[in-house]
Parts: sequence; structure tokens; C-alpha cells
Amino acid sequence: MTKTEKKVVLASGTFDLLHLGHVRFLEEAKKAGGKDAELVVIVARDSTVKALKGKTPVMPEDQRRTLVESLKVVDEAILGLDDFSIAKVIGKIKPDVIAVGHDQDGIEQEVLNAIESENFFVEVVKIGRFGKRELDSSSKIVRKIIDSFNK
Amino acid sequence: MTKTEKKVVLASGTFDLLHLGHVRFLEEAKKAGGKDAELVVIVARDSTVKALKGKTPVMPEDQRRTLVESLKVVDEAILGLDDFSIAKVIGKIKPDVIAVGHDQDGIEQEVLNAIESENFFVEVVKIGRFGKRELDSSSKIVRKIIDSFNK
Repeated sequence: MTKTEKKVVLASGTFDLLHLGHVRFLEEAKKAGGKDAELVVIVARDSTVKALKGKTPVMPEDQRRTLVESLKVVDEAILGLDDFSIAKVIGKIKPDVIAVGHDQDGIEQEVLNAIESENFFVEVVKIGRFGKRELDSSSKIVRKIIDSFNK
Repeated sequence: MTKTEKKVVLASGTFDLLHLGHVRFLEEAKKAGGKDAELVVIVARDSTVKALKGKTPVMPEDQRRTLVESLKVVDEAILGLDDFSIAKVIGKIKPDVIAVGHDQDGIEQEVLNAIESENFFVEVVKIGRFGKRELDSSSKIVRKIIDSFNK
């Protein structure tokens, strides 16, 4: 595989109820590609989230994608494949670096399996958690909304 | 007042649970300043929202501000003054254009009052609504979360 100087970093996620935890993850992901890296983000389809987590996100997929692409740190945001396949995504985007979040062990394992089976030449970088901030996860935001409603 | 070619546009809001309606509003606001306009956004403090709407936002003010400033369209996002005063904000930022949203009649009136009393030289532009999209307001998002919890 030929490598240009500008590295392509791939990150993925649901990005429901966009919050600072998402932005920090994407910023660290891009940094992992070094100077002038390009950050491509795969935004999970509603059907994929439903299949994996048993419920669809609050925000529909097209709005989640557009909002992610509205972020300074993101160069391109694309919806995931209907038949979610990490190997297909890697084959299509050809990233130099794949960034996985602290809560993305499942994705990390799938990436590692795909790299092994397909012989992809790609670096996997695990992004840490950024201290404990209030409301740095979508489920915490949902919980706060429901709690204040029940008061 | 001396005017440089690059116009400064001022927009304001709470920006709780960031969604596409916010992004579209800010994009249209910036366009109102013409080519190369700079967009400064005032993000309402928790105390101001509490005083005006009787309840604090879901997301704390510092996180709302940082998230707004993470958007491509935004050049600078700053928290509002503790003693919310449109006249003080206009005097400090010295915008060429102030953009008000379709649901910001109160702010629009305050801006017009400030312009009249202080003789500010500033254009006020009302930004329309962008069709009807699902979940283009924070209260609709809260409603959807609570509805799905109650099912």
C-alpha cells in the first residue's frame, strides 16, 4: 500500500446526543494521525445500533451524521454500511490509523480480527477516557432528563 | 464606528442538547455577514436560562459553550454576562450584524430596544425556520426521551 504523508484516521461510533466526550474522543483520534491528519468518522446506522444495543438512538442517523460532520475536528462523516462489516469499511476507507474509544472493546476486537484475516496494514490506537466529567455519555444525559422529569 | 471588510455577526442562544436546528441557525447567521464573516456566539449562562425559563438546561454552561465552539461554523463562543444585558454585549463585541432566530422574539425586542437607546450601528437579521425536521428543538428531544422511557 502506498502511503502519502497525510495520514487518514478512522473513528466510529453512534454519536447520539452529541457531547464533549464525543468531541474529545475525535480530537484525540485525529492527533493519533499526526500533523495534517484527515479524520473520517463512521456514524453507526440506526439499524446497526438497534441490532447491537437493542434500541435505536434518540437522534436519527442522518441527523447524527450531519452533526458530526459539522464539527471542526471532522473532515468527513459517513453512515456505516447496512450490513455492518469492519473489514469492508477498512477496505473502502484504507485508513492509516484506526482509533477506538475506551468503551469500544467490541469494535477493537472486530478491527483486530479484520486486520488479521485480511492482512490490512493499519495502526490501532486506543483512546483513553478524559477524566470524569459530568454528562460525558449519552446514557448519562438520558438519565438526567428522565430523573428531572420524575421529580 | 470604523468598519473593516470582514463583518462580525453575533448570535446567541442556550444550545442545550445540540441539534441540527442549532447548526442551521448558526450557518444562516454567518451567511448574513457575507463572505469571510466572523461568527461570535453568546451561550446563555445556566443562571440566565433559569431566570428566563424557570429551569436550568440539561447540559452545564461550560459544556454547552465548548460544544458550540467545536462547530466549524463558529469562530468564537463565549458565555453570556452574569447580569444578562444585550446592550453590554453589543457594546463589548461591536457586531456588524445580530442574527435572531425564529423563536427569539424576546431577544429581538431587547436588541431593538438597546439599538434605539444606545444608538448602536448594527443590522438585525431574523433567521427563518428550516422546514419541519424531526427533533429540531431541545424540548422535542427531551419529550422523545421521556416518551420512550414511559413506554
